[in-house]
Amino acid sequence: MPPAVSPLGSGALAATPHPIDREGVAKDLGFSNLSRNSMDAVGDRDFAVELVAAAALCQSHLSRLAEELVLWSTQEFAYVALPEGYCAGSSLMPQKVNPDIPELVRAKTGRVTGDLVTLLMVLKALPLAYNKDLQETQEPLYDAVDSLLGSLSIMAGLVRGLDFDEARLRQAVGAGHLVATELADYLVQKGVPFRRAHDVAGNLVRQALAAGVELGALPLATLQAEAPEIGPDVAEWLDPQKAIDRRDLPGGPARGRVVAELERLEKDLGKETG
Amino acid sequence: MPPAVSPLGSGALAATPHPIDREGVAKDLGFSNLSRNSMDAVGDRDFAVELVAAAALCQSHLSRLAEELVLWSTQEFAYVALPEGYCAGSSLMPQKVNPDIPELVRAKTGRVTGDLVTLLMVLKALPLAYNKDLQETQEPLYDAVDSLLGSLSIMAGLVRGLDFDEARLRQAVGAGHLVATELADYLVQKGVPFRRAHDVAGNLVRQALAAGVELGALPLATLQAEAPEIGPDVAEWLDPQKAIDRRDLPGGPARGRVVAELERLEKDLGKETG
Amino acid sequence: MPPAVSPLGSGALAATPHPIDREGVAKDLGFSNLSRNSMDAVGDRDFAVELVAAAALCQSHLSRLAEELVLWSTQEFAYVALPEGYCAGSSLMPQKVNPDIPELVRAKTGRVTGDLVTLLMVLKALPLAYNKDLQETQEPLYDAVDSLLGSLSIMAGLVRGLDFDEARLRQAVGAGHLVATELADYLVQKGVPFRRAHDVAGNLVRQALAAGVELGALPLATLQAEAPEIGPDVAEWLDPQKAIDRRDLPGGPARGRVVAELERLEKDLGKETG
Amino acid sequence: MPPAVSPLGSGALAATPHPIDREGVAKDLGFSNLSRNSMDAVGDRDFAVELVAAAALCQSHLSRLAEELVLWSTQEFAYVALPEGYCAGSSLMPQKVNPDIPELVRAKTGRVTGDLVTLLMVLKALPLAYNKDLQETQEPLYDAVDSLLGSLSIMAGLVRGLDFDEARLRQAVGAGHLVATELADYLVQKGVPFRRAHDVAGNLVRQALAAGVELGALPLATLQAEAPEIGPDVAEWLDPQKAIDRRDLPGGPARGRVVAELERLEKDLGKETG
Repeated sequence: MPPAVSPLGSGALAATPHPIDREGVAKDLGFSNLSRNSMDAVGDRDFAVELVAAAALCQSHLSRLAEELVLWSTQEFAYVALPEGYCAGSSLMPQKVNPDIPELVRAKTGRVTGDLVTLLMVLKALPLAYNKDLQETQEPLYDAVDSLLGSLSIMAGLVRGLDFDEARLRQAVGAGHLVATELADYLVQKGVPFRRAHDVAGNLVRQALAAGVELGALPLATLQAEAPEIGPDVAEWLDPQKAIDRRDLPGGPARGRVVAELERLEKDLGKETG
Repeated sequence: MPPAVSPLGSGALAATPHPIDREGVAKDLGFSNLSRNSMDAVGDRDFAVELVAAAALCQSHLSRLAEELVLWSTQEFAYVALPEGYCAGSSLMPQKVNPDIPELVRAKTGRVTGDLVTLLMVLKALPLAYNKDLQETQEPLYDAVDSLLGSLSIMAGLVRGLDFDEARLRQAVGAGHLVATELADYLVQKGVPFRRAHDVAGNLVRQALAAGVELGALPLATLQAEAPEIGPDVAEWLDPQKAIDRRDLPGGPARGRVVAELERLEKDLGKETG
Repeated sequence: MPPAVSPLGSGALAATPHPIDREGVAKDLGFSNLSRNSMDAVGDRDFAVELVAAAALCQSHLSRLAEELVLWSTQEFAYVALPEGYCAGSSLMPQKVNPDIPELVRAKTGRVTGDLVTLLMVLKALPLAYNKDLQETQEPLYDAVDSLLGSLSIMAGLVRGLDFDEARLRQAVGAGHLVATELADYLVQKGVPFRRAHDVAGNLVRQALAAGVELGALPLATLQAEAPEIGPDVAEWLDPQKAIDRRDLPGGPARGRVVAELERLEKDLGKETG
Repeated sequence: MPPAVSPLGSGALAATPHPIDREGVAKDLGFSNLSRNSMDAVGDRDFAVELVAAAALCQSHLSRLAEELVLWSTQEFAYVALPEGYCAGSSLMPQKVNPDIPELVRAKTGRVTGDLVTLLMVLKALPLAYNKDLQETQEPLYDAVDSLLGSLSIMAGLVRGLDFDEARLRQAVGAGHLVATELADYLVQKGVPFRRAHDVAGNLVRQALAAGVELGALPLATLQAEAPEIGPDVAEWLDPQKAIDRRDLPGGPARGRVVAELERLEKDLGKETG
C-alpha cells in the first residue's frame, strides 16, 4: 500500500497563507508523508490511476480463473462442478446449469478496464491545477474498487465450493498422449539431444494414434525400434503420478512442493489480514 | 438510424419450434426487418457497440467545442463570456468564474469512451450463443446514451447563451500579423510562385516585428522593397473583413456562404425533428 | 461505404481565396460530395474513428469465432480439426497441436480496440482547426485496417479447411439431455403451460441422471407418470434431427432454411465483390 | 523497480523434470527472486501490464505539461516562447510558429493508453498456461516504452530551452484581481469568518470592475466602507510578491521553499542516475 500523504494546506491557486503546522497535523493524523507541491496536490490523481490499474490487473487474473472454471465445468471437460448458488438454471433448457458467477466475473474485467480508460482520458491534457473535469474521476474509482471487491469476495466462496471429479481428471491425464514430453525427457537424461528426443516421441505418438492406443500402451519393442536407447525403466517415466513427483523443484508440481507453497501462502495471508 | 430488426422466435439454443408468423408480427409492430439467424440474434450486441461508438464520437466533438469555450473564456483570450448558470464561482477565489459545464462535458468523453471499451472487452472471445457476460452490456449502453444526451442538452443551452465580445474579437483579428497569408495569396494572384510569396510575407512579418507594428501597418515602400510586384491594391487584401469575403466558395467563410449554410442546417434539422 | 467527400480548397486558417471550382473538380474526380466547412474539413477525423470502430467490431466477431474454434478443437470437445498450416506443433509437447491462428486472431481484437482508444484519446479536447496531434491518427488507422484485413483473409482460409467430425457431433447432440427443451415444447403444444412443462422436463432429466441414461431413453411409462399428457407421439419430438427440422421459420436451423440463407448470402456477396 | 524474478525451469505444461539448481543460477545471474509456480511463470504478463500502466500515467503527466506549454505559448497568453527546433513554421501562415513537439507529446498519451488497453484485452479470459495470444503482448509493451522514453527525452530538451517572458508574467499577475483571495485571507486573520471575508472580497471585485480598475487600485476608504476591519496594513497583503512569500510552508511557493525543493529533487535524481 502506498504511503498516506497529507495534502493539508494546499489550494487550487496556491498554498494557504495561514501559519499551519503541516508536519504536526500529518503526524497526529497518522499520515506518513506531506504533499510536496500545493498545486500538484490539488490536480494530481495518480492515486486513483494507480489503484484502478491494479484493480484492472487483478480483475484480469480473475477473468482467467473464471474462464477456466467455465471451461472445466462444461459437459465436455467435466473436470469440476460449481457449487449451487453460484449457478442458475436455464429458463429455456430444463437440463442446463449456467455458470452465471464465473461469466459475470469474467465480464467485469471489461468494466474495470473501462474505468481505467475513463480516468486516463479525463486526465489527458488537463492544465494545472483544479479543473471541474476532475469530478469525473470519482465514479470510475469507486466503481472499479466495488467491482473488484465484489468479484474477489464471490470468487472466494465459489472456489471453496468447487467439487473436482477426481476419476474424470485421472482419465483426462491418461488421455491425449500426455506423457510424450516425459518420453522425450527420458531420452534426454539418457544422453539423447532434445531435438531427436522430441522427434522420437512425436513419431511414437503417431504410431499410437494409428494403433488406436495411448502412447503409454505401446509395447517396449515398438519404442525400442524407434530409439534403441529406451530400456524397461521407461515405464516409470510414463506413469503420470511419477512424472509429477519428478518435478521436485521450487515452483514445481511435486506434491511436497505444492503443499509447502500452500503453507507459505497461508502464512503470508495470515500476516497481512491477522 | 439503423432499421429495427425483430428477433421474435429466437432462442439461446435454437429458434422456437412453434409455428409463429415472424413476418406478420414484425410488420404489425413496425419492424422493418427480421433477424436472419436465431443464435446470432441472441448473442449479437452490434447494436450496442455501434450506438456507443457513435456516442463516443459525438461526445468527442463536444469535448473539442468545450475546450474552445474554456479557452476563449479565459481572461487571456476573453473572446466570449459563458452564460450564468453554466459557470460556478470559485470557493477560494472570490473574483473567479469557473467554466464548470464545458469542463464536465469535456470530461464525459472519457466516460463514454470507457463505456465503449467495456462493451468491446465484454464481447471479446465470447462463444455462442448467450452467456451471462452479456448482462454487463446493459449498463455501459445506458450510461453512454445518458451521458451524451445530457451533454448535448446542456451544451445547446450554453451555446445559446454565449456572449461574444465583438470589440475584443476585432482586436484579435488585427493582431498577430494574421494577414500574412493574404499577402502571400495577393502575390500568388500576381503570378508569384507560392514558395517565394511565402518567403516574402515571412520576411515582412519579421520587419514588422522589429519595428513593433502589425504587418498591415508597414508602408507600401517597405513592402515593395521586398517584392516589386506589390502595388497599392494590396491594401484591399490586407483588410481582414475583405479577406473573409474573398473566400466566397462552398464551405468558405464569406458572409453569404455562412448564412446559406446556417439556413440549410436549420432546414435539415427541421426536417428531422419537425 | 460512406460517400467520398472532397476537401479541396480547405485550409487550417480558412478556405482558399483563389477562385476554384470545387463542384467541378469533385465531379471530375468522382467525389460524391463537398466538405461543408473549411476548418472542419481540416480538423475532422470522423472518417478514421468510424472506420476503426467498425474494424474493432468486426474483429470482435472474429474473436468469438476464433474462441469457438479453439474450444471445438480441444481434445475434450473434438468437434473439429483445424487445417494443417494454421496450427503449430508444440516445442515442448511432441503430441500437441496448437491452434496458433485462431489464438492470434483472438488477440488482435485487443490491438484494434487499442487503436480505437488511441484515436478517441488523441481527439479529445483538441481545439480547431489543425493541431500536430492529428499526425498521431495515421498509425492507429492503418494498423487497425491491416490487422483486420489480415485476420479476415487468414480466417477465410482456415474456415475453408475445417474438418468437422460428424460422428462426434452426432454423439454430442445425443448427450446432455439436449432434448429436454423439446419435451417441454411438446407439452406446450399439448396445451400445458410452459412453467409446468419446464418443471416436468426438469424432473425427468433428474430421473434420467439417477438412472444413468439419457432423457430420450426413459420408457414412455416413466414420462407419463410425470405428465399424463405425454403420448407415444413424443418419440418424434425427442429425435434431434426432427427437432431441428421442426424449426422451419426464417432464421431457424431447419435444413431448407439454412440452405436458403447460404444462397442468399452468396448472392449478396457476389453482388458486392463481382 | 520490481525485483527481477528468474523463471528458469518453468514450462507451459509443468516444470522441468531435470534436476537443475534454480536458486544457484538465479543468484549467479543477479535475480533477486524465483517464480513460485511454473505454469504461472509462463502465462503471467503482470510485468508488462504494470510497466505499461506506469508508462501511461507518466505520459499523462507529460500531456498536461504539454497542454500548458501549448497554452502559454499562444499569442493570447504569451507567457513563454518555445525553443527553436521544437516548433515548426506553418506551411500556410508565414507568421505562425506551431508548437509541434508539445502537441505530439500530448497525442502520444492516446497511444500509450491504447497499448495498455491492448494488453489488458489480450489477457482477458485467457486460460492457463501459454496461448499464442501472448505473442501480441510484445508490441504494445515495446511501443509504450519507446513512446514514453522518446517523449521524456524530447521534453527534457524542450523545458531546458523555455524562454519565459517575465514582464508579461508580472503583468498577468497584476491583472484579473488575483489578490482577491489575499484580501479575504487578510480579513480572516483579522478574525472575520471566511464566508463573510469571501463576500466582502467579491463585492469589492465588482466595484473595481465597475470602476474599470484592478482591485488593488481601489482607495482604502472604499475597502473600509465594505469592511471596517480593513486597515492600512492591507497594502502589504495586496502585493503579489508578498502574497507568494507569505506561503512559507512545506510545498508552498515562497522562494525559499521552492529553492529547497529544487535542491532536494536534484539530490534525489543525482542519487538515482549518478
